[in-house]
Amino acid sequence: MEAILDAATTCLARDPDASINDIAKAAGVGRVTLYGHFESRAVLVAAVVARAMAEAEASLRGVDLTGDPAAALVRLIDASWQTTLRYGALVVAAEKSMPVADMAAAHDEPRERVRGLLEHGRAEGRFRTDLPVSWLVTTLHTVTHAAATSVYDGELAPDEAARAIAATMLGLLTPPGEVVPDVDILRGVG
Amino acid sequence: MEAILDAATTCLARDPDASINDIAKAAGVGRVTLYGHFESRAVLVAAVVARAMAEAEASLRGVDLTGDPAAALVRLIDASWQTTLRYGALVVAAEKSMPVADMAAAHDEPRERVRGLLEHGRAEGRFRTDLPVSWLVTTLHTVTHAAATSVYDGELAPDEAARAIAATMLGLLTPPGEVVPDVDILRGVG
Repeated sequence: MEAILDAATTCLARDPDASINDIAKAAGVGRVTLYGHFESRAVLVAAVVARAMAEAEASLRGVDLTGDPAAALVRLIDASWQTTLRYGALVVAAEKSMPVADMAAAHDEPRERVRGLLEHGRAEGRFRTDLPVSWLVTTLHTVTHAAATSVYDGELAPDEAARAIAATMLGLLTPPGEVVPDVDILRGVG
Repeated sequence: MEAILDAATTCLARDPDASINDIAKAAGVGRVTLYGHFESRAVLVAAVVARAMAEAEASLRGVDLTGDPAAALVRLIDASWQTTLRYGALVVAAEKSMPVADMAAAHDEPRERVRGLLEHGRAEGRFRTDLPVSWLVTTLHTVTHAAATSVYDGELAPDEAARAIAATMLGLLTPPGEVVPDVDILRGVG
């Protein structure tokens, strides 16, 4: 069971269209054995994603969210992107295979962390308050997945993506009438 | 065939989970007849979306894209949202049923219109140039679909959505170091 999940993670992170046959072969089991544990490819992808999310969750807990909320958000985005890179095309496989509702459920815990940070930034006047906080959380989720898809499609370079997500979010979160911060300064590379 | 598409549009715009049975009943045909025209629910949804996109495309061609690019973008977003409202939950049905690649292909023509407007705004210094224009186009597509899903999920009111999309995009597009414009002033309601 763990061996199948390991093999599926490796295969799907390399090729989001990896088939059940590819995965069974990589795990060194037959199709029948694999289907004994996971009734369909979608169920297997869901299990792989659930495990990847749990590991990502553990690493994101270590991010320092104190200090300037904008700088903290950039740190959180950088760490999240490292996780996304580690799982490679897995996000794309998940988006192609999993129903939207299941994808959303898999993101509940990261959403709560982001929501807290955004509310802190709103209270400090750093982030906009003219849009619902739930909408701002949704935009980060959405922009991050769009970046993963753009990298997979070759429209965005992998090493540009974290900066693109952070730059996009800093603009998006700036209150109307305020100046958009420079992401490169906040990341310490400007 | 047209009657089936009309019925499917009505059913799916009301309930993105409308079944083949619901649609056949609304069209006044049997399942066998329906499957004679459309081999699966996914194929039918794709045909409904293709027709809706063609109609939307026709109405978006009328939007005035001259003058201040930021104000033009707000007009384009308002018009696009009216189209989205008309087709209601159809976007949600499409997202649940259509592969990501097909959804992207269905948006090629609107993407080109948006790309032209964003490039115009970049040339005038109104929109940021530190991110690829293809990425900025992707964010509008992504943010619009996220808004449609949020409205369907009850997290965003339908009459707030156009403003939320426009406000989000104006912040996101503002060059670092520049002031985020007030969407309500650009929409003439501030």
